[in-house]
Amino acid sequence: MRIVVALGGNALLERGEAPDADIQEHHVEGAAKALAPLVQKHDVVITHGNGPQVGVLALESGADLALSRPYPFDSLVAETQGLIGSWLLAAVEHAAPGHEAVCLLTRTLVDAADPAFSTPTKFVGRLYTVRQARDLSRRHGWAMRQDGASWRRVVASPEPTAIIELEEIRTLLNDGWTVICAGGGGVPVARDDAGELRGVDAVVDKDLTTALLAIHLQADAFLLLTDVANVQREYGTPGACAIGKTTVAAMREMDFAAGSMGPKVEGACRFVEATGGLAAIGKLADAVRLLGAEAGTIVYPNKAPAGAPIASANQSKEVTP
Amino acid sequence: MRIVVALGGNALLERGEAPDADIQEHHVEGAAKALAPLVQKHDVVITHGNGPQVGVLALESGADLALSRPYPFDSLVAETQGLIGSWLLAAVEHAAPGHEAVCLLTRTLVDAADPAFSTPTKFVGRLYTVRQARDLSRRHGWAMRQDGASWRRVVASPEPTAIIELEEIRTLLNDGWTVICAGGGGVPVARDDAGELRGVDAVVDKDLTTALLAIHLQADAFLLLTDVANVQREYGTPGACAIGKTTVAAMREMDFAAGSMGPKVEGACRFVEATGGLAAIGKLADAVRLLGAEAGTIVYPNKAPAGAPIASANQSKEVTP
Repeated sequence: MRIVVALGGNALLERGEAPDADIQEHHVEGAAKALAPLVQKHDVVITHGNGPQVGVLALESGADLALSRPYPFDSLVAETQGLIGSWLLAAVEHAAPGHEAVCLLTRTLVDAADPAFSTPTKFVGRLYTVRQARDLSRRHGWAMRQDGASWRRVVASPEPTAIIELEEIRTLLNDGWTVICAGGGGVPVARDDAGELRGVDAVVDKDLTTALLAIHLQADAFLLLTDVANVQREYGTPGACAIGKTTVAAMREMDFAAGSMGPKVEGACRFVEATGGLAAIGKLADAVRLLGAEAGTIVYPNKAPAGAPIASANQSKEVTP
Repeated sequence: MRIVVALGGNALLERGEAPDADIQEHHVEGAAKALAPLVQKHDVVITHGNGPQVGVLALESGADLALSRPYPFDSLVAETQGLIGSWLLAAVEHAAPGHEAVCLLTRTLVDAADPAFSTPTKFVGRLYTVRQARDLSRRHGWAMRQDGASWRRVVASPEPTAIIELEEIRTLLNDGWTVICAGGGGVPVARDDAGELRGVDAVVDKDLTTALLAIHLQADAFLLLTDVANVQREYGTPGACAIGKTTVAAMREMDFAAGSMGPKVEGACRFVEATGGLAAIGKLADAVRLLGAEAGTIVYPNKAPAGAPIASANQSKEVTP
């Protein structure tokens, strides 16, 4: 089976922890252990988020007095692909001995006319007072938005339209490597007036990029791994409940938090609609059970009723001990 | 022909310039233009230095109060591979339309018992007073050494012994991609007691890593591109003169600056000894003429007398307009 796994950026750093290299490497080792049974049995592509990491680098770049202006996000995302990729390479090879992994710098095409560029919405980095926010906006040209009682920087998060390195990923996967790619949603590039690819100051959502990748690779399964066991219906209310087996149509009728569960649900729906494959959202530690549709939120095509036995039921036997 | 090109880190940033992203991208575009005739006619692997860039990131990481300790150099080198790699990808594809490039995160194996770890020698980052140096050493555990009247941080620069991603590089090269890899000498890794690869706090010399890569890829030519037209004999003295065609034996008898021309000369010699191929050291703008042995310092095996017609003379016709 060909499996595409999207690893949440928060799987690499827990709330309140210092973003030290060794702390994150430790978490990456835990993630790789959870994925090892998949890597050992299947052809696996691993993508990862970079929210906390790109936030750290953006603040460092913004504070660097040697620079006339901070680095744009395409450069910062590229840095995090190298950083997190190098940790994942070592951890995956350690957790799945005899399996070699490879990390490919990956660019994601976006439309230069995407409305996201004129209304940036993705929060990055830390909280500021309104006075600090005004100052940062003036000094660095950052877009700032209110987030509760505080202000935060926002960047554009345009729709991914193509994975530039798709053929290279396919080649390496076919040759038997576990491929680490499309980190942080991919380095965002757009075509300029001459048709050339140029980096753009944006952060693409990693779940939507990974969904696109999984569709083009015709993956059998797409696992979206995070720190909660299921998608919650009416999350944060007294009526909240965990969603188990469901359909694209049912998920599309519900509202989920933008920038958090929203893109995961949307990515899972897009993959299922395009391929009919298995899409599962759940806990990193449940990776094997998610593939067997035995845990997490499983999104089925609309044809199959929720809770019905699934086409891939036999495949699940492969991965249960 | 299969050509391996090592691009100096200083080709991306001139002395005194702010290390801004757009300034470096502009230089990378110039470098890609110089390499375009090679990319269009040959199978090309491009590696790059990262001295100024890793210095910037090390200072930013050292100044980041959110961290308990700054990132080690394996992590910082990995970041620069993503950063510079993303610039090179765009620039090479722009300069050589119709040719696709790919950037691979590359690890370089070193020996954990390399004596370089106990006596770090490679200067990184800026100049400090002796008082600042003492403080940095105490706070961060940095090794510091005197450099003229000032003090600078030094890191270990162990010998490269293998390129972990060699097979992946060969696969992508054989499939027709221009491969960007081994940036900054590769992410340094060593085997721990259990035989697992672990990142180590070091910076491998990029010219020695690239020589090893060129040898294992059995390249026809190895070009070491920098900002001077030739290697100089007795550089900085009144008797200085430019070296044109020479031999491994002649070069090995001379002394060259460690960390600067020294590793370039050593890398060229190792490549020529191992393969008998063409090794040339010279100006980036002369790349095409270097391949034709019409410019720069050309290092021949000891068998051929210096200045004699070379085996690859016919090949040079391929690349001269």
